[in-house]
Formats: sequence, structure tokens, C-alpha cells
Amino acid sequence: MDNVDTLRRQIEVARGLRPADLLLKGGKVVNVFSGEVQQTNVAICNGRITGVGDYYHDGIEVCDAGGLFLIPGLIDAHVHIESSMLSPAEYARAVLPHGTTTIICDPHEIANVMGLEGIRYILDSSKNIPLNLFVTVPSCVPATHLETSGAIISPAEIEELFRWDRVIGLAEMMNVPGVLRGNLNELEKILIARQSGCPIDGHSPSLSGKDLNAYIGVGVHSDHESTSREEAAEKLRLGMYLMIREGSAARNLEELLPVVTPATDNRCMFVSDDRHPRDILSEGHMDHILRKGVRLGMNPIIALKMATINPARAFMRSHIGAIAPGYRADIVLVNDLEGFVVRTVIKDGEIVVRDGEMIIDLPHGIDGRARKTIRVKDLSLDRFKIRISGNRVRIIELIAGQVYTRQVIENVSVRENKEVVADPARDLLKIAVIERHCATGNIGLGFVRGFGLQNGALGSSVAHDSHNIIVVGTNDRDMQLAARKIIEMGGGHVVTSEGKILGGLPLPIAGLLSDRSLEELVSEEERLLAAARGLGARPASPFIRLSFLALPVIPELKITDKGLIDVNRFEIIDIEP
Amino acid sequence: MDNVDTLRRQIEVARGLRPADLLLKGGKVVNVFSGEVQQTNVAICNGRITGVGDYYHDGIEVCDAGGLFLIPGLIDAHVHIESSMLSPAEYARAVLPHGTTTIICDPHEIANVMGLEGIRYILDSSKNIPLNLFVTVPSCVPATHLETSGAIISPAEIEELFRWDRVIGLAEMMNVPGVLRGNLNELEKILIARQSGCPIDGHSPSLSGKDLNAYIGVGVHSDHESTSREEAAEKLRLGMYLMIREGSAARNLEELLPVVTPATDNRCMFVSDDRHPRDILSEGHMDHILRKGVRLGMNPIIALKMATINPARAFMRSHIGAIAPGYRADIVLVNDLEGFVVRTVIKDGEIVVRDGEMIIDLPHGIDGRARKTIRVKDLSLDRFKIRISGNRVRIIELIAGQVYTRQVIENVSVRENKEVVADPARDLLKIAVIERHCATGNIGLGFVRGFGLQNGALGSSVAHDSHNIIVVGTNDRDMQLAARKIIEMGGGHVVTSEGKILGGLPLPIAGLLSDRSLEELVSEEERLLAAARGLGARPASPFIRLSFLALPVIPELKITDKGLIDVNRFEIIDIEP
Repeated sequence: MDNVDTLRRQIEVARGLRPADLLLKGGKVVNVFSGEVQQTNVAICNGRITGVGDYYHDGIEVCDAGGLFLIPGLIDAHVHIESSMLSPAEYARAVLPHGTTTIICDPHEIANVMGLEGIRYILDSSKNIPLNLFVTVPSCVPATHLETSGAIISPAEIEELFRWDRVIGLAEMMNVPGVLRGNLNELEKILIARQSGCPIDGHSPSLSGKDLNAYIGVGVHSDHESTSREEAAEKLRLGMYLMIREGSAARNLEELLPVVTPATDNRCMFVSDDRHPRDILSEGHMDHILRKGVRLGMNPIIALKMATINPARAFMRSHIGAIAPGYRADIVLVNDLEGFVVRTVIKDGEIVVRDGEMIIDLPHGIDGRARKTIRVKDLSLDRFKIRISGNRVRIIELIAGQVYTRQVIENVSVRENKEVVADPARDLLKIAVIERHCATGNIGLGFVRGFGLQNGALGSSVAHDSHNIIVVGTNDRDMQLAARKIIEMGGGHVVTSEGKILGGLPLPIAGLLSDRSLEELVSEEERLLAAARGLGARPASPFIRLSFLALPVIPELKITDKGLIDVNRFEIIDIEP
Repeated sequence: MDNVDTLRRQIEVARGLRPADLLLKGGKVVNVFSGEVQQTNVAICNGRITGVGDYYHDGIEVCDAGGLFLIPGLIDAHVHIESSMLSPAEYARAVLPHGTTTIICDPHEIANVMGLEGIRYILDSSKNIPLNLFVTVPSCVPATHLETSGAIISPAEIEELFRWDRVIGLAEMMNVPGVLRGNLNELEKILIARQSGCPIDGHSPSLSGKDLNAYIGVGVHSDHESTSREEAAEKLRLGMYLMIREGSAARNLEELLPVVTPATDNRCMFVSDDRHPRDILSEGHMDHILRKGVRLGMNPIIALKMATINPARAFMRSHIGAIAPGYRADIVLVNDLEGFVVRTVIKDGEIVVRDGEMIIDLPHGIDGRARKTIRVKDLSLDRFKIRISGNRVRIIELIAGQVYTRQVIENVSVRENKEVVADPARDLLKIAVIERHCATGNIGLGFVRGFGLQNGALGSSVAHDSHNIIVVGTNDRDMQLAARKIIEMGGGHVVTSEGKILGGLPLPIAGLLSDRSLEELVSEEERLLAAARGLGARPASPFIRLSFLALPVIPELKITDKGLIDVNRFEIIDIEP
């Protein structure tokens, strides 16, 4: 934070009366205000850009930019850091070499596990890292009443959160029906955000016409769920900021590009929303989106504005997103404006990446608070048994490449004791969701088709949005073992077979995040995936597929700790039709 | 302010479940987000726009726009309302028929007279009028130490002001040398604004290069003083919002237009800064600027954005500047996008102007507080006398069409008692500035050339920036009479001759503002100007010329209640060289 003394020092550097702390010489500076590229120098003092001009020559440290392009540090305006399974510090270490210096993070997942303490963990553990991590307050915790979450965030708590440092908005208001019905809870949260002067992010897939007017009218300022250009154009026209999402699960850039025009571009920005560790490692982050945008024909400076000044302005962050006096010295040196290959990253005036490699150590920022979040009552084998009175059951059927599912009803063979078991020959596996926050003893049981396991079980503590333990398998013993291993690790992914643990990936932080580096995490994940494939697992990302089976807001048949959920009717239903 | 109930009602209107309070049918809606013009309907509820679309049909009141263009209410992002000499309510009555629904007002003049009470007056008297009047806090009261003002606004008071409703920024930081020297007072004010999240307006004529970097770097976000396109381009490039000024005194639109490009236009806006009553009556306000811009070749929608959404965004006002759901229903119906002839004005959902005429009564909002601000100690004739020891004096020489002056030194005839008097034959008039805030008895005396009076005196309580009483004349008696009349009126302009008052224009509110309507004010002013011209007054606007002679920040020789001021040396000097 600046004070009179720091300002005086910056003024002296700007006026040329004192050398800069760091002088960047001879770079091609991309100006997001004028759209120009100028060969000039940049003077930095106290972590701020104090001067941009060829009349700056003196620096205590001088960095020759050697004709590289200087671009503002990149901003991801909407991301769930939990998708990376990395702690904030390791996330920073992963994305800084890709030029990201700011993320606006919706800690929706950890908040569902730990409430305000989870958000506090994200903020505290990102305090001393070279990444601007801003938080938007999760607006929908829990996501529904059809599941048991680890926390409820009330309007009063949201009011409290807006007083915290680095909390800058209300995160995606997913309860669109609640808003349209005028639910007290949702409207109170919206009014609190407005009174705090905080922008409200939206989440309104396919919403249009009158309902879209109503949703925007209460004060929702943005949306990242557009999947067609018509949808995006309507949202822009009605005043929403358009967040073009290009993440791991959803990739909308190519479809939406035509709506970015000289009339609209300053209302558009890029977001990743979800970015899996393998994709960060192999493709990158916002740099990947810029590359793709330019490859698809975008003007590179327009693309760059959509990852720098545009999101900064939309979220009223006046000192990031540009290379200009008074801005934080978050600067990225890249080879060119096509490949956006990152060479050097400067964060708050300090060189943190050189030749594409991190050159500073980051504090891990991992403490005891966010661990040991798993509390399960009872896991006797008997609790996994499914008994029915008739001979027909509902089955959750996966659809290739989609997060929604189909409900099918089939005859099954019933044992004498009324029990029904998995039948791998028909790809009919058992699935269980075990409540893990309050030790209620809740367990939801059902059948699922599409995983293709021939034997054994897969389990995970990542299960949207409440993150109970979810296990799929061919037999109760391996399912029980998988759940027990997850509990023992404090969370994670597990593969079991024939009474043995074939692999485990610990996620001890809130049962969601690893305490390893990106590289270690990805190689652990590869081993685990190989083990799952060895058992016959068919989906490319079986743990991600598994995690979405517990999300009761995406049709058609889902499962929570309270049982099977008919999403269309939005209620719990019996396994027998 | 919205609450749960108002939001619910708005949602119902948006969803078509309830008729709008007011439905605007069949207009051509200008969309500042998409750059499109769409023939569609606008539904309004609770003073908010709740829906934009051809699927809205029902309204309790229906207004047929009959093919007129619907544009957002116009915004003047930097104006000194005192230049109009109108009270806030009368100002609203004057500009609403020109489509202005929002002004961001720097009450610098009244603050120099009355301090916080003056700002409070502006806010209170604009509470219940159909004009969004936002205030930026005057940053430089007093303007200099070379004069006696009615108030000093300290950093602590600025902190207090930022907690007031409708106070949204720090007004033009005119003390550029103070900032560049790192003065404690200026930096404290800047830091307080930054901590309050309030933008800081600039005032930096001709500033460039290193000093401009330093000035911007402390956090100044805008400038309205560019007079050349090179100056404007440099300021834009370094991150300033460009306010293109087109007012009564300074008119920069034509010169600066080429810097408005698709890359920069969203960083540009129009402001009037100063707008005299005659010009409002004859030309208009922001509508005049739009007309001129389009006549000079601007794209009308780009021009419109510069008077609507762009200033709204720059000042972080998220609910004005567009016709979209959730925005305040401030809408103007115009004939076309060339003449911008205003037909109907809707303010917060209420029709206030129809067929170009105000159709509602406005509360005057004038109370006793802002009156009786003139306190003068002693005005005996003797106090007007100039006695010197030699026979040479400094003379303030007006330069046609400029606010700066030249210093000339000439021989004068000295009476036996060492007294020097005016010599109308040589256009050598006496000028006096009489302290009028604290009854200190201060009087500054000097000679001026350029007014051309053959006899009598002109006087005014409008004298930038401290607004002491300023009188110019051919003889002490008429000067004394003019000053006494001003005191008696509680402020105003006066013309006297041969012991008689030829005309007076009362400005009883703080000695700066009339309590009349625009039309009355302009006709009073015409009469007064005729009287002044009858005495030989040469300048087209003698009272405006007079008012700038007391402004000790514009070269070269000026006069305050403390005496003659050498502006280049920034000190008080003797009348004898």
C-alpha cells in the first residue's frame, strides 16, 4: 500500500531525479489504451510502474528486453482454482510461467466443504505469493437442498466477507430459478453485493428473452456460460460483460469469436473457469487462449485487452491490466504476439520467471487448518447393500463427452435376500455417495452404466458441489476399501481391486487439493489413470466424470448422499420406479 | 434504493407477469454496448429499466415513441455548475430539455466561499430534482496562499466528504507543481481518495514527458485540459481518460477529434467544464457537443457513448449511461442522431420534458444557508487610494480573447499627495480586490488596461478562485458604490457611473449564484452588459474577464486581496517596480 514516502520516491523516479529500482530497456511495449506497440523503456519503483518513455535511462537494476514484446500480466477473470487440484502457491508456480499474474477466483468448491474457513484458507495461503489472487464470494453454498454440504453461507456471512481484503465480487449466481422466483435468500445476497459496490457474476446457460432481462435487471453484470454466438450477442446487447470461456471442460472461443467487434470488444474478456492440471502443464493458461484466439484470426492487441485491461475495468481494479504509470509492475515479456511464448515475468517489480522458468521459491502456504475435513460415521459393508422389492431399477447412464446423464430403467436379477449387485457384464456398476462432512451416516446408493469397470472400484472426495465421497465399483468390498482409503488420506482419488489398493492420489487439503507441485500431481494422476484403465475404465477422465455424477443441477438422473435425484423434477426419488 | 420488494416487482415486470409502470413503444433504441440501433420496446418499473425487447407490450402508461430515437440520458462528466450562475434546481430546469440527466459537478467556486457548507448546499438543494448530481471534492481550496478564501478544505475534511452520499471522486488536482514537489497536503488528499476507492480527476494543461508520468503515477485518472491532439494522445497513451472539453470558455473538440479512434474511443468522453447561461440558452449543453461532433464527422453512436456509458464507466457508476435492464430509466427521445433535437426526457421513469418543454415543477431548493456570505470590514473612500513614491507603476494588460495577462510598466502622473488616479484617456483604470469572507479589511489595488471604460465602474463578487469582490473603474467613488451595492445584494455584478447604480445582477447565493430562472438571468445579464457597453467597456464579456483577473495561477500579472501577484514568480509584488 502506498504512503506519502513511497509516492515521493515514485515521483522522483518518474521525474528522472533518481534511478528506477528496475529499468526495462528496449522492449516493444504493447499499449492497451492506444492499441499501439512502441519501442520504449519502462521505469519501475516500489513495485509500481513509474514511467514509460524513452527518456528513462537509469535503473539500479537494468533488464535488456532485447526486442521482446512487453505485455501486461494476464488476468483470468473467472476461475475455480480447485479444478487444478493445486494449492494457491502451487497454482501460482504453475501459471506464472504462462504469464498469468492475476486471477479472480471463485472458491466455490472449498467453500462447500469448509465455508468461510475455506475462503480464509485460500486468501491466507495466497498472501505472500507473486500472484494477485482476488476472490468472488460463492453465492450458492450449498448448491441445492438435495445434498449435504459442509457449510451454508448465509447472506449475513456474505456481508461479512465483502469486508475482507481482496474480496471483490459476488461469484456466479447459479440459482437462476431462485432469482426469477424472487427468492429472499438470493435477492438478499444480490442486494448486499450491490450495497457493497461489488459486481455480481452470472451463470445463466441458455437464458434468453424476458427471463434474461429479469436476471440482468437485478444487477448481474457478466456471464461465462454462452455456448452460441446468438446467446452471447443477446447477453452483450442487454448489458452483460461477455466472459468467453476456454477451459478444460468447456471451450467456447471459436464459436463466440464473431461477436467480438470494435463496438463490443471492450465488454468482452477471456476466462478459463476450469483448468485441469494436465492441461495447464501441456497447453498453458491464458497464454493458450491468446494463442488460440490469434490463430483463429483475432487482432492480437484486442485479444490481449480481453485478458488484461478489460477484466480489470469490469472488476474495477484500477491498477492492473496495463503498462502505464501507477499500475502494478506486473509485466510479461513474450517472443511475439502470435505464439505468446513467455520468456520473463515481472510481478510487482520483481523478476519471478526468467527464460520461462520460475527463479524464486514460493512459500507453500499450506497449514493444518484445511486438513482433516473428512468425518464419516460408519462404513460397515452392509451399508453398501441395495435391496429392492420388485425387479426393476433406475440406472444412471453416462453420455459420452457430456456432463448430463440419462435415466434408464431395466430389469435386474434379484437375490433371495432381495439384494441386487453389480453386473459388470452388462456394465451395470454400483455407485455410492457417502456423506463426509457431519458424520450423518447418509449414504446414497444406485446403479450406473458407462464406466466399464470389469472389477474393482474407483472413488473420490471430489464430487460436485458438496464434495461427499463418491465411489463406483463392481463389488461392495472394493468400494468400501476405496472409501476407507480416501478417509485415511484425508481426501483424494483411489483405485482398488480384489481387496488391494492399486493407486491413490492424496488431496489432503479440504479433500480437494494436493500439497504437491503441478508436475508431481500430473504424474501421480497418470499412474492412477493407468490403474483405472487397467480395470477397464472407459471415460478419458473417469474421476472427473465421477465428480459430476453428484451434481444435482445438471439433468437427468444424479446421486447425492440423500439418494437418487430426478433433476428435472428437482427431487429425491426411489431406486425402484 | 432497491429492496427485496422493489426487486420482486421489477422481476415480475421483466418476466411479463405484470404490466410496466411505463412502456415506451416503437422507438429506435440506441444500444451503446453493441453499437446497434434496434426498433424495440422498453419496459420501466420503479424508475428502472426492467426490460428491453419487442416481447414487452403492457404498461400502465404507454408512450408511443413514434419512430424517435431513444438514447441514454446525457452525462456531463466535469462541470462547474457555478459558471451557469444558476442554483442546482434552476440548472436542472435549464439542461434537462437538452437531454442532460447526470452531471458530475466540481463545486470548487462555492467551496472557496463556504467550504463544506457550500458543498452541502449543492447536495441538499439537488436532492429532490430530476437530475443525477454527483460531486467531486474540490482538491485545491484555497487555490493558492496568495489570496484570502472563505474556506480551507483539509485532507481530514476530504476524508469526511468521501463518506457523503453522491460524492464520487476527487476533483481536478490543479496543484500540479505541488504534486511534482511531493507536497504533503496534495499527496495526503490523493491517498485518501485512493483509499476511498474514488477516482481522481486531473488538471494538467501542457504537462508532458517525465512530469506527466509522475503526475499520472500518483493516481490521477483523467484530464480535461488538452488543447492539442499531440497532448491528448500522450495523455491517453499513458493511461488517462481523455475528457474532451467543449464549453463556453474553452472549445477543444475540433482539435482533439482525430485522437478518438476505435482503439481509444472507450477511454474518451465529453465535458463542458464551464458553460455560461447565455450559451446554455442559445446552444444547449451536451446535445450541442453531440451535434458539433457529428457535424465534424464523428460516428453518432461513438459520440453518444462519450456522453453516456464512457463517463459512467470511468466514474464507476454502474447503473447509468445505457438503455438496458437494471439501469436507471433516464432516457431521451430525439428526432435523429444528427441534430439530436430533444423531444422527450424521462428521468427515473417519469416524463419530465415533453415536446422540448419541462412539464413538471421543480422545488427551488434555495434556503437561507447559502445567503449572506459577504463580510467586509471597512469601505471608506480612502481605502481605494493608491499612493506611490516614484512615478512608475506596474499595469495589468488584458490580451484579447485570453485569460492570461501581460505586465507592463509605465510612467504615470503623480499628484502632490503622491496619489495616482485612473486615466481613462490612456485606458488606465484602477482595480481593487476587496476581501469579503472574514472582514480582514484586506484590499489589493492596482491598474489595469483593456477594459476601455470612459467613466464609472464595474464590480463583481465572482472573482476566481477565492471570490472576493473585484471592482474596476475610472474613479474611487463609483468603485466604492459598486462594492457597496454588491455587499447590499449579498453578491452579484454591478455597473455604476457618476454616483448612480446603472444596473445590478444579484447573485445572493454565496455571492455566486442567482435565485432566478435561466431566462430571467440571461435577460438581466443582457441589460447589465448594455449598461457596461454604454460606459465604453470593450471586452465581449467584461464580468468574466474581470473574474479571471484575481486568479493567481494564470500568468502573468494578477491581483488578489493581498495585492499584485507576479504569477511567474508566484509571489506578491509591489505596484512600483
